[in-house]
Order: sequence, then structure tokens, then C-alpha cells
Amino acid sequence: MFSRSVTRAAITRGSVAPRTNLSLRLTGFRAFATVKNAPLAEKLKVNGDRLWDDIHHTAQWSAPSPGGVTRLCADENDKKVRDWFRDQLLALGADYKVNATGTQFGVFEGEDNSIPPIAMGSHLDTVATGGRFDGPLGVIGALEVMRSLKEQGIKTRAPIVLINWTNEEGARFFPLLGSSIVYAGRSTVEQAHAATSNDASELTMGSELKKIGYVGDGPNTFEEFPISAHFEIHCEQSTDLEKAGKPVGWVEGWQGLTWYDVIFHGEDGHANTYPMYGRRDALTGAAKLICELEKVAYEKNGASTVTGIHSRPWGACNIQSKTKITFCLMHKEAEGLEAMGKAIMERVKSIASLHGLEAETDRTVHLLPGNFWPEAIDCVRRACGDKGIASRTGTGHDSTMTTLLCPTAMVFARAKDGISHSPKEWTSKEDCAESALVLGKAVLNFDDYMKQKAATA
Amino acid sequence: MFSRSVTRAAITRGSVAPRTNLSLRLTGFRAFATVKNAPLAEKLKVNGDRLWDDIHHTAQWSAPSPGGVTRLCADENDKKVRDWFRDQLLALGADYKVNATGTQFGVFEGEDNSIPPIAMGSHLDTVATGGRFDGPLGVIGALEVMRSLKEQGIKTRAPIVLINWTNEEGARFFPLLGSSIVYAGRSTVEQAHAATSNDASELTMGSELKKIGYVGDGPNTFEEFPISAHFEIHCEQSTDLEKAGKPVGWVEGWQGLTWYDVIFHGEDGHANTYPMYGRRDALTGAAKLICELEKVAYEKNGASTVTGIHSRPWGACNIQSKTKITFCLMHKEAEGLEAMGKAIMERVKSIASLHGLEAETDRTVHLLPGNFWPEAIDCVRRACGDKGIASRTGTGHDSTMTTLLCPTAMVFARAKDGISHSPKEWTSKEDCAESALVLGKAVLNFDDYMKQKAATA
Repeated sequence: MFSRSVTRAAITRGSVAPRTNLSLRLTGFRAFATVKNAPLAEKLKVNGDRLWDDIHHTAQWSAPSPGGVTRLCADENDKKVRDWFRDQLLALGADYKVNATGTQFGVFEGEDNSIPPIAMGSHLDTVATGGRFDGPLGVIGALEVMRSLKEQGIKTRAPIVLINWTNEEGARFFPLLGSSIVYAGRSTVEQAHAATSNDASELTMGSELKKIGYVGDGPNTFEEFPISAHFEIHCEQSTDLEKAGKPVGWVEGWQGLTWYDVIFHGEDGHANTYPMYGRRDALTGAAKLICELEKVAYEKNGASTVTGIHSRPWGACNIQSKTKITFCLMHKEAEGLEAMGKAIMERVKSIASLHGLEAETDRTVHLLPGNFWPEAIDCVRRACGDKGIASRTGTGHDSTMTTLLCPTAMVFARAKDGISHSPKEWTSKEDCAESALVLGKAVLNFDDYMKQKAATA
Repeated sequence: MFSRSVTRAAITRGSVAPRTNLSLRLTGFRAFATVKNAPLAEKLKVNGDRLWDDIHHTAQWSAPSPGGVTRLCADENDKKVRDWFRDQLLALGADYKVNATGTQFGVFEGEDNSIPPIAMGSHLDTVATGGRFDGPLGVIGALEVMRSLKEQGIKTRAPIVLINWTNEEGARFFPLLGSSIVYAGRSTVEQAHAATSNDASELTMGSELKKIGYVGDGPNTFEEFPISAHFEIHCEQSTDLEKAGKPVGWVEGWQGLTWYDVIFHGEDGHANTYPMYGRRDALTGAAKLICELEKVAYEKNGASTVTGIHSRPWGACNIQSKTKITFCLMHKEAEGLEAMGKAIMERVKSIASLHGLEAETDRTVHLLPGNFWPEAIDCVRRACGDKGIASRTGTGHDSTMTTLLCPTAMVFARAKDGISHSPKEWTSKEDCAESALVLGKAVLNFDDYMKQKAATA
């Protein structure tokens, strides 16, 4: 199915361009609000035991992490979980491909294979101190839906594709969303392969993917392999569902996010003998910027996090002459995000001036706040029914890339205390099952929506 | 000569113990002040061209460093310069040994080999962004003295030993003075071998010394191999000589130095979605401590430098849950040094409290300000004559370890702008030669001093 020429009746290219304006607001949402689930969606059931077992079974592929999962992009455990996922897809009869950035696709035929498939995707990599749910729940939840559809003889009109996106986390190789960003045409395979490790090594994502045998010839971009829509389960990373007493939520959009790298260049000198006055100490400059990042976040009613620092030269007896920090700014409003970025860049200049440093700044990721597609959100909302509430995500996902291209929405599953990126992540078995059911229903709702739309076209 | 049983007539064990009180002041200094150089010292000349050529010849063994030298302890370039030094010692007829921590000794016979040798020692390793003079000038200057003594037929009463001490800098493996600290009985071979790399790797000093073939069976401690005295040339690391217009100086003592490791333990969490309030961000805590270190240094009229930071987890999407900083405090007075340490430990507690962190602190090196031995200083002072002035060092040297054991003093060579631990280090050819001449004369003065002392005993 990967080689077929796809007609784009359902998802016109014209619908892609406007979505690149990420600040687009939900419009016409109420028009969908009274519609029930599609007939096939009403029939669907999922197997919560099987889903739960697989989440914990695959958690074995982790570096030591009591209670959690440490499975960095393209490490030996990532290879193991990928091999397992491949085997599950093949056992279900998928047309299976791996692309050049390691993303795994498993396509299942529909009644009309001229329609681009509806995707269910997320990621099997975790952060360095990750949990069992972010993002395995998304991929294994999708697998559970597909198994259930097969078992229950539910055939969609459009084909379906399951996707395990590579390097969503950006924990080992920056930037995050490392493969979906290429799929969305915002980066290239070459750039993704050249992404260097966040640790002090010289490893690249390309070299490491090759090492585990995950550089394939599958499709790299939406142009090569369009999808009709993208749906994704994710554990909620705040406490809205928990406070509302709801197991699931439909995700209407995301807050704005910007990542910066700032490198201060100072001067080498002896740690003990160089006078304090007149030093060009890059690390002291970086420390002051980190303090300012906290202040600016509070001042502007946003948030900021410094996610990494690298300082040189190594050793115990030198003033630090080169310090790099990586940080992100978060704000619910585009204006707030821009104001924070501007304020921080001013602080960078002031600190450089005070300490005689040169500052190099790079805005590596800039995602304005935005909303998913109303027609896709509505499919999830109907699937949730009275078990869910509207929610928003505070971070980027592969879905924030696919939404640049096609109808996209997400399902949230309730997370204990809203904790994420920690071994303490927890979503109950029942909530995992409920989120998978919602995902499956949302896909069936969207399939029905496309069918209705085609009929009235 | 390494295997002989040494009589300790000249250097009694009784003289060792009192020097462990590092705050001991110069006493009886004036008693030596009018004495001229020993007759043999007056005869000595050195070859400034040969010294200069060898400093630049050996600077070739460096990782890329325009104008400077990057030769970290036990790296491939360290092996090359060690091999060269070994060859020079053997060519001069030395009894040559390497000890378990890689330190190279070359012993040359005197007229009475029952006396422990007089040592001339320093180090051939550099910091990561080092220059050509700190400490190669000390080792190659000693070599030049020995060559000149041989050529000019000047034979000392005591034997002489040339020493290249391993890992003086602590740039790659902490702590600094990595072999002389074992020699002084303040650490063990096992602890030195276990010293881990300051970079993110798991390499140890023991494993890396073994890799370059520099774990030998030579003497490790003063107990095994006593010396009568230790003299060392070093480029000055401040501007006293330059301001006074003098090429050399006799070093009377050192300022106090303390190194600390502080590790803040926080909690893992998502960089984008975890609210600012309630975070336990270890890196923000560390940044605040770095800012406090600057303040406390100014408040207490001392100095401080943060020489390294390591923060985890790696990645772009997590709050930092573990951050380690290494820093040193410097003060000319013991009371000031203690007060700075106390103030900083208070700040550590305040910051930990503010950010919900746990703090682990370790005072890894604590060297109170102190003075070298008057009889050794006087030998250098006489050798300097009117070309030198009294000076003090702002940092630790292998001599600050040997001074715990036996008469020790240092020779300073004028350094341009007082710059050190930088590719910009510079000492002129003439000043290098003058410092080597002073070193040689100081050794001959001490040899004569011991002879006079033995005669009157």
C-alpha cells in the first residue's frame, strides 16, 4: 500500500496550508457538538487486560530505572521494543515499513484503499528518567484498538496506519519530535540524522539508528505518504482530569513553547590565581541567566525550564570559558510567549555586558499556541461522551506536527497527580482502557465523517 | 639507588611532623638573610637556548590548541612527553623509575649517596585549555639544570632526583596533586587510581595510566623514598614580578584553598507541563548557589571560582533533578577561608530549603594558607639575588605537598600579564633561563647548607 498513488479527495492540499497558522482558534466547533458516535464506534470494545499487560511487558526494555522506563531514542532497549512492535504489526497482517528516521508504520487495508489512511500514532521512546505511560500508552493503545477492530470484524472505509514516531522526546537527540518534524516538512532527513547527542558524546541520531538497524526505505514526508487524520492517546501531564474526576479528555490545543540555546563565551584563566575583578566567567553568566529565567516566567505569567547545561573546560582548576544552556519558555498566549522571549534576550545582553562575555543565541523550536482541527476534536469529544472533559496540553507531541498537515486531535488519559517524565507516572488500568476505547471510537467517528463528507460532496 | 636503605641524618622524621601545621609562619628567616650563594652555585651557568627549544619542542604533544598546550593526565600526548622525558633522563645516566601513580623519577648520584636526594620536580600535564609553561617549565627547567651540572662537572654531595609528578592539575581526574598527595601520605595509590574523570565518562586515572603503560613499581611515598628537599620552578600566576620589573621571585608561601562538591537532589518532572510552583529544580538551586559564591567572595575579601557543573537528566524536556557543582574558595588568611566556607554552607542550606532540594556537600580539598621552609626559601632567595623579589602563590603545587614532609621552596618566573591556564601563558626565553639558573643555584645552596649543618652537628 505504500507504493500506491493516493487520491486526495477527502484531505485536499488546500486544507493543509491554513493550519500552518498555529494560532488559529477553534471555529464552528458547536456545529459538531450534538452529533452522536458513528454506528461502528458504538459497537467497539477493547481488551483492557491485554493493553495493561503489554504496557508492563514492554517496560522491561529499559535501562535500570526503579518503577520507570529509561528508553532513549535508538538505544539497545529502543531496538528491543521496536522489534516487538514490528512483530505485533506483522502478526496482525500489516503492510510494514520503517523510514529513514526510524519511524515504524503498519498499514491495514480499508474498504477503499484510495483514501489516505487514518493514523493512530505516538512514540515508544522515553526521557532519561521516564515512566511507563508517556508515550507507550499511545502506541500500545493504538495496537489494542487495531487488534480489537480485527477481532470484532470492524472494517473501516479508509485504511488505518499505526505509527511509532522516532525521537518524540528529544531526550537523547535534539530537537524533539525528531521524525514527525521531517514528516511535516519542517526539517529534513539529513538534519535529523545530524542531530547530536545531548550528552557529551559525538553520537548522532543517524549513526545510532543505523547501529540498531532502523534506517529504512519507508516514506519520510506527508508528501510521500499522506494521511487523512492523526489521533493520539497521551497521559495527561497536568491534573485537570483528576480534579474533574474524569478518566479521559479531548485535547483542544496546546500552549506556546519556545526552546533556546544560549552559549556564553568568556576567557580561560586559572581558578585560584585570577582575580575576581576582570574575569570573563561564562558559567557565572549562565547562572545569572538561569536566575533571570525564573524571574521572567513569574513576571510574565508563563513558565520556564532550563533543561540542560554544558560547561567547559573540564577540570577543577579553570575559570569556565564556554557555557551552553538550553531552556524552554511556555505561555498560553502567543503575545505572552513573545514577550518572555524578548525579555530573556534583553537579560542575555545585560549579563554578557556585565561579565565581558560574548553571547550566541539560537531559537531552536518556536511553537505558538494553537488548536487542533475542530472536526478531529469533535470525533474525540463524541467518543469520550460524559466520561470526558475538554482539556489542553502544555507541551508538544507528534500530533502538533501532523496538525500542520491534516485533521488531528488527541485523547488524554487521567494521570496520577499529573506527573510525567518521572518514574512516578501512573495511569490506572481502567483509565488506560478507557483512553484506548476513545481512540478507537474517534477513528471510527472520523472514518464515518469522511464518508458522510464524500457522500455530500 | 631506589633500593638502598636511606639514613635520615640530614632530614629527621622529627622535622616532618611540625610542618603539617600549615599555618606555621616564617620564623628565623632573618638568620639566613645575609648569606651569599654557595661556591658551586656561583659557578653554575645554564643553557637558555636549549631550555627554550625543549619547551617548544615538547609543546607539539598536545591536542589541538592554537598557541597553547592541551595535554591531560594520561592521554596520548602525556604518554609522548613522558617517553621523551624518560629518554632524556636515561641519556643523562639517571637511575629511572615510574611509580604506581605514574610519577617519573630520575636519580643522579652525589658524593654521598646515603643522603636522601635533593629533588627538582614539577609536572608535564596541563589543563584542558593550558599554555606551554605551567608546569613544563618546572620539569624541563630541572632537566636543564641537571644537564648543566653534568656538563660543567659540578657534583653535589647529596644525590639529585628529577621528578615529573602525575596529574598535578586535576584537570582530567580529581583531586589535583594526584600523585604528590599520595607521596605525602594524604591519599593512597588505590584512591588515586579510582579518581574518576571530570568529563561525563567512567574512565579512571588508574585505567588510563595503565593504558599508556605508566603504572610502575617505583616508590609511592616519602616513607619508601625520602628526599632531602624539593625545589620547583613555576611561572608566576599573578603580576607581582611584572610590576616590580623582576624576572624571578622566591615563593614564601601560598594562600588558602578549599574545594567543595555540592550536589543538589531534586525531583524529575516534565519541563513544559510541571507548574513553576512546587518544582524541585536542582539546576535552579545550583545557579543560585553560583550567584551566592560570587557575592560571598566579595563580602569576605576572598575569591571563588566554580570550576565545573554536571546536571541530569540529559535531554531537552525535563526539569533537572540532580546537579553537581565543584568550586574552590581562596583566601590569604585561614580565618577568612573558614568564614567563606561557613557562609557558603549556610547558603547551600537556604537554597535547598527554598527549592525543596536535598544537598550533599563534600569538602574535597582543604589547604590552609602556609609558608614554605625558611631554610629552603633562603636558598632560593640567595640564588635570585637582586634579580628577584619575595612572592607568594595563589594556588597549590606539588611543592605544597612535599612541604608537609621536607624543606621545600619554589622559584617564580615572570609571566606576561600574570596569565595562566590559558593558551596566552607567556614567559620570555630570558626569564625561563633565569628561573632555571635560580633553581640550580638553590639546589647547590641547599646541598651546601646540609653539608654545613652536618659538619656542625
